[in-house]
Amino acid sequence: MIRNIFTILFALITYGIAAQTSITGFTPENSKKQQQLESAFEAKLNTKNLDQWMKRMSAEPHWVGTEFGRKNAEWIQKQFKSWGYDAKIETYHVLFPYPKVRLVELTAPTTYTAKLTAVAVEGDIYTAQGDALLPSYNAFSTDGDVEAELVFVNYGIPQDYEALEKLGISVKGKIVIAKYAGSWRGIKPKLAAEKGAIGCIIYSDPQDDGYVRGDVYPKGAFKNKTGVQRGSVMDMPTYPGDVLTPGYGATKDAKRLDRKDAPTITKIPVLPISYEDAQPLLAALDGTVAPKSWKGGLPITYHIGPGPAKVHLKLEFDWQLKPAHNVIATLKGTEYPDQWVMRGNHHDAWVHGANDPISGMVALMEEARAIGELAKKGNKPKRTLVYCAWDAEEPGLIGSTEWVEDHKKELQQKVVAYINTDANGRGFLGAGGSHTLQAMVGEVASAVKDPQRGVSIKERRSAANLVNGGTEEFSLYALGSGSDYTPFIQHAGIAALNLGFGGENAGGEYHTIYDTYPHYKRFKDPGFAYGIALANTAGRITLRLANADVLPFEFKQWHNTVSTYLNEVMTSCTDMRKEVEKHNSMVDKNVFELAADPKKPFKKPIKKESVPYLDFAPLQNALTTLESNIQEFSKLNITTLSKEDRNSLNKKLMFAEHVLTSESGLPRRSWYKHQIYAPGFYTGYGVKTLPGVREAIEQKNWKEAQEQIIKLAATLNDFSKHIQKMTAIH
Amino acid sequence: MIRNIFTILFALITYGIAAQTSITGFTPENSKKQQQLESAFEAKLNTKNLDQWMKRMSAEPHWVGTEFGRKNAEWIQKQFKSWGYDAKIETYHVLFPYPKVRLVELTAPTTYTAKLTAVAVEGDIYTAQGDALLPSYNAFSTDGDVEAELVFVNYGIPQDYEALEKLGISVKGKIVIAKYAGSWRGIKPKLAAEKGAIGCIIYSDPQDDGYVRGDVYPKGAFKNKTGVQRGSVMDMPTYPGDVLTPGYGATKDAKRLDRKDAPTITKIPVLPISYEDAQPLLAALDGTVAPKSWKGGLPITYHIGPGPAKVHLKLEFDWQLKPAHNVIATLKGTEYPDQWVMRGNHHDAWVHGANDPISGMVALMEEARAIGELAKKGNKPKRTLVYCAWDAEEPGLIGSTEWVEDHKKELQQKVVAYINTDANGRGFLGAGGSHTLQAMVGEVASAVKDPQRGVSIKERRSAANLVNGGTEEFSLYALGSGSDYTPFIQHAGIAALNLGFGGENAGGEYHTIYDTYPHYKRFKDPGFAYGIALANTAGRITLRLANADVLPFEFKQWHNTVSTYLNEVMTSCTDMRKEVEKHNSMVDKNVFELAADPKKPFKKPIKKESVPYLDFAPLQNALTTLESNIQEFSKLNITTLSKEDRNSLNKKLMFAEHVLTSESGLPRRSWYKHQIYAPGFYTGYGVKTLPGVREAIEQKNWKEAQEQIIKLAATLNDFSKHIQKMTAIH
Repeated sequence: MIRNIFTILFALITYGIAAQTSITGFTPENSKKQQQLESAFEAKLNTKNLDQWMKRMSAEPHWVGTEFGRKNAEWIQKQFKSWGYDAKIETYHVLFPYPKVRLVELTAPTTYTAKLTAVAVEGDIYTAQGDALLPSYNAFSTDGDVEAELVFVNYGIPQDYEALEKLGISVKGKIVIAKYAGSWRGIKPKLAAEKGAIGCIIYSDPQDDGYVRGDVYPKGAFKNKTGVQRGSVMDMPTYPGDVLTPGYGATKDAKRLDRKDAPTITKIPVLPISYEDAQPLLAALDGTVAPKSWKGGLPITYHIGPGPAKVHLKLEFDWQLKPAHNVIATLKGTEYPDQWVMRGNHHDAWVHGANDPISGMVALMEEARAIGELAKKGNKPKRTLVYCAWDAEEPGLIGSTEWVEDHKKELQQKVVAYINTDANGRGFLGAGGSHTLQAMVGEVASAVKDPQRGVSIKERRSAANLVNGGTEEFSLYALGSGSDYTPFIQHAGIAALNLGFGGENAGGEYHTIYDTYPHYKRFKDPGFAYGIALANTAGRITLRLANADVLPFEFKQWHNTVSTYLNEVMTSCTDMRKEVEKHNSMVDKNVFELAADPKKPFKKPIKKESVPYLDFAPLQNALTTLESNIQEFSKLNITTLSKEDRNSLNKKLMFAEHVLTSESGLPRRSWYKHQIYAPGFYTGYGVKTLPGVREAIEQKNWKEAQEQIIKLAATLNDFSKHIQKMTAIH
Repeated sequence: MIRNIFTILFALITYGIAAQTSITGFTPENSKKQQQLESAFEAKLNTKNLDQWMKRMSAEPHWVGTEFGRKNAEWIQKQFKSWGYDAKIETYHVLFPYPKVRLVELTAPTTYTAKLTAVAVEGDIYTAQGDALLPSYNAFSTDGDVEAELVFVNYGIPQDYEALEKLGISVKGKIVIAKYAGSWRGIKPKLAAEKGAIGCIIYSDPQDDGYVRGDVYPKGAFKNKTGVQRGSVMDMPTYPGDVLTPGYGATKDAKRLDRKDAPTITKIPVLPISYEDAQPLLAALDGTVAPKSWKGGLPITYHIGPGPAKVHLKLEFDWQLKPAHNVIATLKGTEYPDQWVMRGNHHDAWVHGANDPISGMVALMEEARAIGELAKKGNKPKRTLVYCAWDAEEPGLIGSTEWVEDHKKELQQKVVAYINTDANGRGFLGAGGSHTLQAMVGEVASAVKDPQRGVSIKERRSAANLVNGGTEEFSLYALGSGSDYTPFIQHAGIAALNLGFGGENAGGEYHTIYDTYPHYKRFKDPGFAYGIALANTAGRITLRLANADVLPFEFKQWHNTVSTYLNEVMTSCTDMRKEVEKHNSMVDKNVFELAADPKKPFKKPIKKESVPYLDFAPLQNALTTLESNIQEFSKLNITTLSKEDRNSLNKKLMFAEHVLTSESGLPRRSWYKHQIYAPGFYTGYGVKTLPGVREAIEQKNWKEAQEQIIKLAATLNDFSKHIQKMTAIH
């Protein structure tokens, strides 16, 4: 019987684990071998290692440049070596600000000086390390010393400024205070500065991240009143990585920008504070009462201001170059040594980072250990495996970005795919990435058992989707930013995945002094069962990519997904048009003024520019052509292909993701080359799919939207040709 | 040119105030006269009276049975007499419980005794009247002395108990604590008792009614931490009015039930408390953390319990008969003295009641004064006007209910319509009632100017609807319960309206010691401009009904509305069926268990009984027949009708609402006769339209649902015949 990669896949989807007699990308014979290998691999995974390693690596704070961070890197390197890997440390020299002066004081109408210190808690000795803990701050805030009236801006995202506009409230010359959440934190000072604010305070509101969610640490997992979320505010949607070396490696002798010219350092000073410190500031505000949806969980009436609260914010940083130590461990492939399957997780943390990133790191290591053992016994991978432990992820994906920038050409030629992990928890598989890999990941998810419920992790994910009103189908979410896959997929155009478990491990420890081993053991993945599930999932994916006869990239699901994105974009255009028409007719009828309370602030809305009709035909035509080309390609029978044809095909498959990039990148941020996925310019980590077109529409830049449609259509047509070329191999 | 009532109406809707040359129910000639009369009426309205009268009537607490309440009734009577009305006081003797013992204590794991006292505030001398203020309590709670573990039940409404069921938490033998809001308060102890609880505490959460909404009194209008909402918990959805005399007047010598047999007194003790008193109780709960949507605004983690918090609740009441003094003032009609247009508002309050009910009472009085003046100058109404000031509304619509029950036969013969008002505020017209009056009320709303924006109150209402995502059309909401229209429409089958302004006067004074003259003047309708707008609106409606050549009942809009209700009910049935099917398929696939966190409480859901197909055809056919009969009736030309024909027609029009009732009433609550509108058995004040059918479906009582369909169809067919008879007059 002739099998091809897609009918096999179909069979797997239809019949589940039991029927998994053959897997995508493998001949029937090799399928069997691969499954035996994966079973042997799974059998070697041991929770005790994860537990011991986490305890060790999260014993002390280890942000980039610390002694303990360097020791961790060296220890990781040593482990990899002991498992048979060729492991080295590649060091970059990257700008990293350490907070010297942090001052937030309320100066009117009453006074209060923010404590800016989280307290040590009973039962967790790690929280009592005093000065060894990194003070809470936002990395890549500019230095500053400002005093001004305070304005509460909710989450400080675009729609909040629209609401302020309607109320006639300006933040010009003011200091804003914004709640964490609603967007990636770096958007808050970026937008505030664009709107004319001179300082920015971010705090964790108990509604989003404190007692409203659940019992606080140490009774429960959630943020107590003193906890502060650290985090980078570098303008990552412009470019991540070292702020002084955009687009190239921060090697010792690299040419560097002057710090004052670095475009990704914030324009205004910004500092995060606890809700205990935020309450006196917010309580001192008066003026307009905040809209219902803006209100948080503090026992006060939330006012917007401006003032009478006046705040003094003073920040000074020690700006130094610090060594970022990436551990790169290689296990050479037997058949295709120049085809690399890459795995990575960062090792640096803001403080102890038991969850973020060590929980992912120990899963990666256990996976590598087991694969190393198999290799020692003769089961070496056909392709080369490259395991990476990145440094300096927290301040801005710096370790991985510098490494990718430094090795970009080689990587673009050799890397099959990059598989990322980071903090891991308990619950449901969350998998994001290139949709050409969706079919394969779904197949692996059918083969991995959920440790709590006994069904496959795919079934458990489907059950959660159904209960939450979604559909049963397995799908990858699209990648925005927020971890080390970014330089691979967004910048180098390498297919990437991001894997993790979660949904049953909520807490408030993220980037605080409470992300410790005891906290993890009590509230995250107490028995490390999901650490093993992660190692099992990522390891199987790695091994399939390493050993496949034909690399398991699949294009039908990719096409369905991208078609959905196009529909979304077209619908959003239509919706915007209707909304503007409705708005304008309401302005004509003066209903906004008639409905407004004359005793409350109100700015009469004006008519909006009407939404033109864009020509989406180039994209529709490109996707139609793609569909038939993909259909043709799907008829390819891998068992009848000669070895040479398979090799040529694999080389083209590896390169497919790259065809979806454009060297000129996205408007105003050329570092981002991918035409299908990007982090949002005003959402940060949040993804924007078909970003060139979508963001131009969102920004009502119609000329650019039409240009981006043409550009994206050309990319899709190139992709179409690439698929035609692959079909022609045989 | 021949005009009929419906083309005139259409012209009015289309052309607005400017085109209002002729009004529904009047010949062209009489239209002009009526409009002149209404203008003269409007010109006489004076804000100063409202201000003075409110200050006087709300100077002291005046709940039923108080000396000040009696004085208010006598003073109102005197005013009406001075304006030329024949005014008398009709007194009923009704059971009213006064709280003797009120005790709420936390007895474990810590102790706390609730203060149960709202504090006097600066700038409001009325709040400092100490013992003269009625202690906070829920009238018609049973006596009780219970101690048990506490359970937090959110709002204590049916869906909350479904959520508890899913969590495997029972309230049997426990004391529940429920937030105010989400339903009428009386539902909370009723449901709690049905579920086996032995006591009930209700509190005002700051999220719904406190600092989360805005600044608290005296800085702002909202509820401070000590404020407590009083209110009746009598089982009004079974029957309102005196608990001892169901269905007949509580005259001095009436036969009375034994108190122990009174079905509308609660089964378990219930007491309202402030959020200051609630916080220690809620903070002492542990166990399951409350679902997100249950969380309130207190700075605690909301747990459900049961326990470890244990509460002792002790209540004793002084159960006495008290005199309820209704003031009934009559101005005899010149042409149709036996056709009564009735207006009413209650005069009793829980404490001072500046807003509830005095703001509505003073508007009614000013309206009556102006009409009295016009009458003195020769502009007497053609029909008799009956102005009523009800007592004992607060404990359960008692004054009006006893009066209606006592005079039911006469009222059913003579009353054209009853127009109710109650607490009034600032903002937008809210008008509810019989949809046969919708066209007329819309027409009046076009003729009244909004005091803040200068357009008509109808235009301002439309603007608010549009801004809030609704439609432009003017509509009446359907009446449930909650004020004195209830005995008229629900029990006696008399067409009724309820009118008021609001939307710009939010506050937390409702049923507290803070509903005072200073609070009203600062936060409600400071200049009484909307008090005048209410007098103007209700007065014009009263005068139109009093002087119309043909009573302005209209049936096309009624038909549209009732058709909408039928569609809702049919859709709800289809939706329930789909939901049950989806649920059952998910149970079959075991997805609930697979998606559940094994570390959290979870009760595996079972399959639900499938939803049968009901035969809605009798209702669909009845509405179709009605539509064509209404179409025929609408061709009637009032100008060509003889006086005798008009008289016969008017007598039938007056009686139309009664045809929509059934003497046997609703299942298990025969006091409620109306087949189109009723308060919900499990929502309280909240209306259920087509209640017999809708509630049977909601309760999944399919047999009863089908029976109620047949019964309602018969009612609609009677209505159809009634309309045919009216068409036959000429």
